[in-house]
Amino acid sequence: MSHSPLRLAVVGYGNIGRSAVEAVQAAPDMALAGVVRRAATAPQSLPAELANIPVVADVVQLGRVDVALLCGPTRSIPETAPLYLRQGIHTVDSFDIHGQKLWDLRQQLDAIGKQHNSVAVVSSGWDPGSDSVLRALLLALAPSGITYTNFGPGMSMGHSVCAKSKPGVVDALSMTIPTGTGVHRRMVYVELAPGADFAAVEQAIKTDDYFSNDDTRVFAVPSIAALKDVGHGVSMQRKGVSGVTHNQLFEFRMTVNNPALTAQIMVSCARAAALRLRPGAYTMPEIAPMDLLPGEREHLVKTLV
Amino acid sequence: MSHSPLRLAVVGYGNIGRSAVEAVQAAPDMALAGVVRRAATAPQSLPAELANIPVVADVVQLGRVDVALLCGPTRSIPETAPLYLRQGIHTVDSFDIHGQKLWDLRQQLDAIGKQHNSVAVVSSGWDPGSDSVLRALLLALAPSGITYTNFGPGMSMGHSVCAKSKPGVVDALSMTIPTGTGVHRRMVYVELAPGADFAAVEQAIKTDDYFSNDDTRVFAVPSIAALKDVGHGVSMQRKGVSGVTHNQLFEFRMTVNNPALTAQIMVSCARAAALRLRPGAYTMPEIAPMDLLPGEREHLVKTLV
Repeated sequence: MSHSPLRLAVVGYGNIGRSAVEAVQAAPDMALAGVVRRAATAPQSLPAELANIPVVADVVQLGRVDVALLCGPTRSIPETAPLYLRQGIHTVDSFDIHGQKLWDLRQQLDAIGKQHNSVAVVSSGWDPGSDSVLRALLLALAPSGITYTNFGPGMSMGHSVCAKSKPGVVDALSMTIPTGTGVHRRMVYVELAPGADFAAVEQAIKTDDYFSNDDTRVFAVPSIAALKDVGHGVSMQRKGVSGVTHNQLFEFRMTVNNPALTAQIMVSCARAAALRLRPGAYTMPEIAPMDLLPGEREHLVKTLV
Repeated sequence: MSHSPLRLAVVGYGNIGRSAVEAVQAAPDMALAGVVRRAATAPQSLPAELANIPVVADVVQLGRVDVALLCGPTRSIPETAPLYLRQGIHTVDSFDIHGQKLWDLRQQLDAIGKQHNSVAVVSSGWDPGSDSVLRALLLALAPSGITYTNFGPGMSMGHSVCAKSKPGVVDALSMTIPTGTGVHRRMVYVELAPGADFAAVEQAIKTDDYFSNDDTRVFAVPSIAALKDVGHGVSMQRKGVSGVTHNQLFEFRMTVNNPALTAQIMVSCARAAALRLRPGAYTMPEIAPMDLLPGEREHLVKTLV
């Protein structure tokens, strides 16, 4: 399975894009073709770590690209992914809306991939993503029972953006606090604009669909920047039945840097997309975990299995 | 994906075979074709739970069989599996020797499966098996770092059989006790034959290859039967690096009935063998976890991912 390095493009350069550049550079079998940003960026305004990396507005400027890591906002993925897949470039995204929208995206990209001989890995992150792999595996190990996925403590990007969007809010941070059995408290910190009414802000946040079903507490703080930490965590628990035997107990825990993990998982999925999967779209539980890894199959089976 | 029930045969009727019968009967999409035992068994000497189940000496007596669950001893698998694969019957085994022998078996069965249009799932259990899936997944999430797999507390079949084989031992039980970082203590209980010399038995056990590398303690007890419990456990820990970000922490724990879990995993792998995999041989990390589950792909993606 020796081959020339896979050439990857990182599309978008926010938190995840930055970590994706690092993870591609750290991968033994990959080369970074460059970074794609919406607008051409003047060289003097680029962050220092991109000094020696091609930064372009269109992927065609990067020469051969095997896989595009789509690191833009979730809502941009249904529009962005097809642009790459139609050029025969595999895509990996971390689309993070579960359920119908995720299935719709998978089906849309599946058809395009099959038509253009390219592979899309959809919702490659930790949830959806590696947590989904665990949920599937635990269901195979104990088909009856309940799985609880408890998130945090950690910052929720989606909830933070929602809180920040309220009138009178300059910046916001929403922490997800697990209270067990998949129930969460939202601890929301807001930096108010001068003269903003805290009670009105609190009310606007608590009644938003993002928060209205959870125990939500809102606090005014002088600086959001002083609170930010991208650490996050999960505790997934399943108690279930194997065959007819009850009380089989499973737990998975992790405590991680969130964008670093998301980007690393995307990079690992890029490998499966380029080397292992047939054209079409896949979520992570639809991919054999060994296909995410570099190295010879014989070595992997002897050392991991 | 609606289809007539998969027809499974359980080959061998020890601890795992018994649990396999239960797990096949509990599966919504499977039917138990029957049990294959080495010698034909007189009906009056069969266990009560097999009263209404065909018990035969040769699988051909069971009519159509899609998958054979091979529940005999590990060392019998390289000889037994080909007999089924050559008839176009898929096989699932829980061969439990890691490393070169596992790879050799996979390669042997891969060639036979490809030739006879059948699938072999090799080493389908919890270790090797589902633990292997986790080791592969954690490596994809944090490529640098160390994974420790800690077993127990629980009974080791292999070590118990070894201890029992020593002269002067009537019955034996070896418990695996985790002491952290993948190091284990062996607590060995022996029921001695009348007049047996405990010191000689202790010496024979401690110097056997099975035990000589571990902290091994041997105890004489009046009855092994009084100590037996098939509960077992795992704690797998990884601390590693995602991209260039260190100190990513992961832990998987389980506390389970050992034969019930092994049998359930074999049943789940039978589904992948019959419905999803192309001819050849696979270890569990080479199988997409979703392929282990019954049900429509759309439903699975919407509810699990």
